[in-house]
Amino acid sequence: MLEPGATIGILGGGQLARMLAMAGARLGLKSHIYSPTANEPAFDVCAGQTIAAYEDESALSHFAERVDVVTYEFENVPAATADFLAARKPVRPNPKVLALTQDRLAEKQFVQSLGIETAEFADVADAGALARAVARLGRPSILKTRRFGYDGKGQALLQGGADLATTFRALGGVPCILEGFVPFAKEISVVAARSVDGAFRAYDICENAHEHHILATTTVPASLRPETAAQAAQIARKIAEAADYVGVLAVEMFLVKEKAGDEEKLVVNEIAPRVHNSGHWTIDAALTSQFEQHMRAVAGWPLGDARRIGTAIMRNLIGEEAKRWREILEEDGACLHLYGKAEIRAGRKMGHVTYVVPDR
Amino acid sequence: MLEPGATIGILGGGQLARMLAMAGARLGLKSHIYSPTANEPAFDVCAGQTIAAYEDESALSHFAERVDVVTYEFENVPAATADFLAARKPVRPNPKVLALTQDRLAEKQFVQSLGIETAEFADVADAGALARAVARLGRPSILKTRRFGYDGKGQALLQGGADLATTFRALGGVPCILEGFVPFAKEISVVAARSVDGAFRAYDICENAHEHHILATTTVPASLRPETAAQAAQIARKIAEAADYVGVLAVEMFLVKEKAGDEEKLVVNEIAPRVHNSGHWTIDAALTSQFEQHMRAVAGWPLGDARRIGTAIMRNLIGEEAKRWREILEEDGACLHLYGKAEIRAGRKMGHVTYVVPDR
Repeated sequence: MLEPGATIGILGGGQLARMLAMAGARLGLKSHIYSPTANEPAFDVCAGQTIAAYEDESALSHFAERVDVVTYEFENVPAATADFLAARKPVRPNPKVLALTQDRLAEKQFVQSLGIETAEFADVADAGALARAVARLGRPSILKTRRFGYDGKGQALLQGGADLATTFRALGGVPCILEGFVPFAKEISVVAARSVDGAFRAYDICENAHEHHILATTTVPASLRPETAAQAAQIARKIAEAADYVGVLAVEMFLVKEKAGDEEKLVVNEIAPRVHNSGHWTIDAALTSQFEQHMRAVAGWPLGDARRIGTAIMRNLIGEEAKRWREILEEDGACLHLYGKAEIRAGRKMGHVTYVVPDR
Repeated sequence: MLEPGATIGILGGGQLARMLAMAGARLGLKSHIYSPTANEPAFDVCAGQTIAAYEDESALSHFAERVDVVTYEFENVPAATADFLAARKPVRPNPKVLALTQDRLAEKQFVQSLGIETAEFADVADAGALARAVARLGRPSILKTRRFGYDGKGQALLQGGADLATTFRALGGVPCILEGFVPFAKEISVVAARSVDGAFRAYDICENAHEHHILATTTVPASLRPETAAQAAQIARKIAEAADYVGVLAVEMFLVKEKAGDEEKLVVNEIAPRVHNSGHWTIDAALTSQFEQHMRAVAGWPLGDARRIGTAIMRNLIGEEAKRWREILEEDGACLHLYGKAEIRAGRKMGHVTYVVPDR
């Protein structure tokens, strides 16, 4: 259990690291940011910084000496980096979780091994394997690279006429996974935390809408049957416990309505071993934000009160949408967050706004 | 109107500057902290820093070149410093407000000139003037230095037997003010903001309890008649407008119950030209915190939504009380804030905790 004044090392310097650092500072914890690139959003709000490659062992050693625990804002931290640091300081969540979530195939196998439903999937090592997989899973189905995909990058929808070999090559000819198409009624996510001593707390379930494969809005609470919401939280708990997880994680799920009757079921889509965009509303509309919750967990502290204080709608400000900041500043109940990124680029997450309607 | 990415210069590096810097960062504004001493709380969360005396014109020039607007976290910024900076960049609130609030006599005269009630007072230039003032205002009464008082420092209660010349000397023989004793029923404060274009927004009224002259707790909403609450906000507005104020200010008032009948009235005690300890609850229980509100105002932006989202009780963690952090982390509805001060000292504000009970 760290003392106030201790330093949390954070791998990555983007907006998630920025919001983590600010949440830590509220609690009297310092943050030291490690990033391969300068001018990252988190550098404006941290007590210490290292700009070096993830492969730079001398910089990593130096970093490890200056921090009390290491965490990360993204799942694509190289395994060797995580292992190098874990030999020197606690790394939370543990590097095994990184290995799992960096590989879509390993992740799906892990989730299924817990008796939790995922989309149907097949290992696609080469174009031949793709043909066999499509024969089994049918079309439409989705071909994804096993590694390094996010926000729709590294994936292709296979519809009627798509040529399989061409599609496989277009994704780089790297190991892939084919996923069966899930005709979902809703996309939801569970943002939850687990502490060093195994306590678990989930926020109310988030209902998500994507545009162009990027999260556009999150609405909380999700409009769900109470038993479905409870089941979603239970799935996240099972995953966190099986992974011996410490920190905040997000589990993205599909809600599927069965054609016959009014049965519904949950299908896990993806695990994010970190704070998550669909949890940004917690800064303004929960007693403890996901960022504070993560910092508490990695510091070995007890989790905070995850109760919601109102209905929240979070909208991402992508690219040019950030130019709406003046207008948003005047909107009732609008909590504006800008990430301090100098350059607007298409598809770049520049900020978000959370609209809070207090419960009365 | 500044653009996101602009830099706010803040004079002072304590916990108020720290919380201002974090609120600015949420909005994409950078903070540059100017402080005569190193290792200040705000240095953990700022994009730029200057460690130099307030009289160091070369450092002040350098600072002014690096920021787009200047503000401060405390009212005892030397007048010459404020004027030097105001000749180079906008200083908000304007330096005239500093001059007013640095001098208890000028402040009381200003408030009275607006037709707002204060305690009775007398100018005490020397021990002879003190004797005449006591003859007029009676005992108990309170002798205060005109300048540099805070948290009960620089003041003495004159009761029955106190020797006047000794008391005057004990305060340093400096210019003083004698204030009549106000037999108050409650201490309240109005935390409010005024924007560059003259818009005004007050938070719900705060009810304050002091221990050993230091704020101990703030409860919001104050238990007041609605017409008294409205009158309190109106007083703050009148003061802000008369001072052409930009930013957050706090006006401390006494609620006095008249002996006969159930009449009550408000008496202004003090103006703080800055974010205020009694407004810390707004971080966790208002849609826009006082810190964000101040940063919006000094950036020339519109004010945010000041609505409360629940009942709040803020308790300061003074000196050794900060050692209760472990226990507080486990309390329901407790939002803990620690200021990153390495050394615990008696009477030192180490942090605060806000207990929020969401309105349902």
